[in-house]
Amino acid sequence: MLGFSIIPRDCTLMNTSTEPDREHDTIRAVQWRGDRLCLLDQRLLPGEERWIECRDADQVTQAIRDLAVRGAPAIGIAAAWGVVLAAQQGAPLDPVLAMLRAARPTAVNLMWALDRMKARIVAGVGAAALEREAQAIQDEDLAANRHMGELGAALIAPGSGVLTHCNTGSLATAGYGTALGVIRAGVAAGRIDEVFAGETRPWQQGARLTMYELIRDKIPAHLIADSAAAHLMRSGKVQWVIVGADRIAANGDTANKIGTYQLAIAARHHGVKFMVVAPSSTVDMATPNGEAIEIELRHADELLSTGGRRTVVEGAQAWNPVFDVTPAELIDAIVTERGVIERPNEPVMQAVFGR
Amino acid sequence: MLGFSIIPRDCTLMNTSTEPDREHDTIRAVQWRGDRLCLLDQRLLPGEERWIECRDADQVTQAIRDLAVRGAPAIGIAAAWGVVLAAQQGAPLDPVLAMLRAARPTAVNLMWALDRMKARIVAGVGAAALEREAQAIQDEDLAANRHMGELGAALIAPGSGVLTHCNTGSLATAGYGTALGVIRAGVAAGRIDEVFAGETRPWQQGARLTMYELIRDKIPAHLIADSAAAHLMRSGKVQWVIVGADRIAANGDTANKIGTYQLAIAARHHGVKFMVVAPSSTVDMATPNGEAIEIELRHADELLSTGGRRTVVEGAQAWNPVFDVTPAELIDAIVTERGVIERPNEPVMQAVFGR
Repeated sequence: MLGFSIIPRDCTLMNTSTEPDREHDTIRAVQWRGDRLCLLDQRLLPGEERWIECRDADQVTQAIRDLAVRGAPAIGIAAAWGVVLAAQQGAPLDPVLAMLRAARPTAVNLMWALDRMKARIVAGVGAAALEREAQAIQDEDLAANRHMGELGAALIAPGSGVLTHCNTGSLATAGYGTALGVIRAGVAAGRIDEVFAGETRPWQQGARLTMYELIRDKIPAHLIADSAAAHLMRSGKVQWVIVGADRIAANGDTANKIGTYQLAIAARHHGVKFMVVAPSSTVDMATPNGEAIEIELRHADELLSTGGRRTVVEGAQAWNPVFDVTPAELIDAIVTERGVIERPNEPVMQAVFGR
Repeated sequence: MLGFSIIPRDCTLMNTSTEPDREHDTIRAVQWRGDRLCLLDQRLLPGEERWIECRDADQVTQAIRDLAVRGAPAIGIAAAWGVVLAAQQGAPLDPVLAMLRAARPTAVNLMWALDRMKARIVAGVGAAALEREAQAIQDEDLAANRHMGELGAALIAPGSGVLTHCNTGSLATAGYGTALGVIRAGVAAGRIDEVFAGETRPWQQGARLTMYELIRDKIPAHLIADSAAAHLMRSGKVQWVIVGADRIAANGDTANKIGTYQLAIAARHHGVKFMVVAPSSTVDMATPNGEAIEIELRHADELLSTGGRRTVVEGAQAWNPVFDVTPAELIDAIVTERGVIERPNEPVMQAVFGR
């Protein structure tokens, strides 16, 4: 546990802006307060809504490393605010950048956000300008999500059911969400009638976080076991699978939460469409294809215990990859804020994201 | 919880017979003791090895209904012993048959075992002959499993890795197991080098029971999240998926634990072979195909709580089918004690199992 958890009086879940659709989009999990960063602790949800207050870059780093804040865009935004805190306190910024970069080494958005901050530092700007840059990163993420929501929802026929995986919502971003943003927009536009969420073992981000967002924001949803997805598709209840991404390679191959690949195979088998939704900062044109993406193996204990209790016999081993790669040929559409790429491949990706 | 749980002094886990391979097959979960039935309580494994002693048919019925005994063959065997207990006590047997039949209405083996007992009752035999019939059902199940083990293992190339789902081992049968029997035989024959077990949400039979059997019987194994199966197949670590069955229809369509269908789709996508292992009593020629098999939906709470703790926000709903149907065209081999059926279809099934 983090040692500095508190409940800041001026942080609340509520989206207090004047944005549209506030009723179905109430959560803002990363909140800047001028001299400190408030983070909604995602390890405790849905049982407890506890805020963490970070007053320096060390605390932000720890929150990223300990998964108090998660979701590729949210991690990048939090890291940017970590740089601002260091700048306000007159700390040397190069070690701070390195420390934040190392907190989750596989997160592409984290590197992207820190590169943006570093470019301003190299340009010689002060703390106030860095604060404006971090705010821009956060604001642009929210705007990108709203735009992707519209683009993605337009692909969905009215009356559809959709299945999502992991958590890609307000909790994982500046707000609104990527895949969950498309679902929010699709529900608002009357295109999506039913939402199913896979529980996403072993961390259960779908069960704990996505269901929390959907219920809180009055979006009707059913949880399913991850292994019930193919049976769900066969039943005809879903027309689209909509997921986020941790990294999109130059040919469209997409690394995402373990289980995504299995959903893509089952979707193709049933003629269900498959959509990836992520900001363009997730695209890594330096990674030629999925083969070049190293898949992180995490500790066996995540599978050997459930809900804090040991469920598997002592002496047992587990194989626990956290991500998998979905080949581009199983993806019907990649949605970024730059537009929709249908049937992604290397030339099309190059045309949109190449230098 | 059952009210009559005790630890009978004369029941142990150990396979005390003179059968071969005792070292890698140590569990006998259904044990008859002349005037009572000992059942290893599967709800408490692996944390606690507690035995339940059933002294009448009511207690056997309750143990089946409450899932203290599970696995289609084991349920049928336990029910047969329930009839013996009733006969020994001079109870009227028709109501006992009806009560046992209703304990798990979808289990084909349960109906089959009770039909066998009823045929002897109708023939007018006494308690001693019914005891011999129940013992025959149990002994034949074990013999069938050993035979299926040999038949199935012969299909597997030396040096293979295999993936299984749910629990189909000694705990689910008279001993040795169906799909897990093939795995035992394949390991013994040096054909299987690596075993992977899917955890099998929401009940986690793979995590709790299969890993318990494999570790206890010194068979090297790794647990995986159900959603990691396709990524495992893509990695080249497994050449066969081997599963059991709850019901096999007349065309070879197979109902089994939720998630089996998803594995079959992923296996076909990767060129991994798919084997169903079950005694012929699982084949229901009166069910023409999978469309005719009703899929039981269980309570949402099984998904909304994990390890006894609520993990999902209050107000959430879940869709919780317990079984799914794998179409025959995705099955490479059905193994019963009558032989191996490769590429099952209606004419071949009719030739082997028709009257």
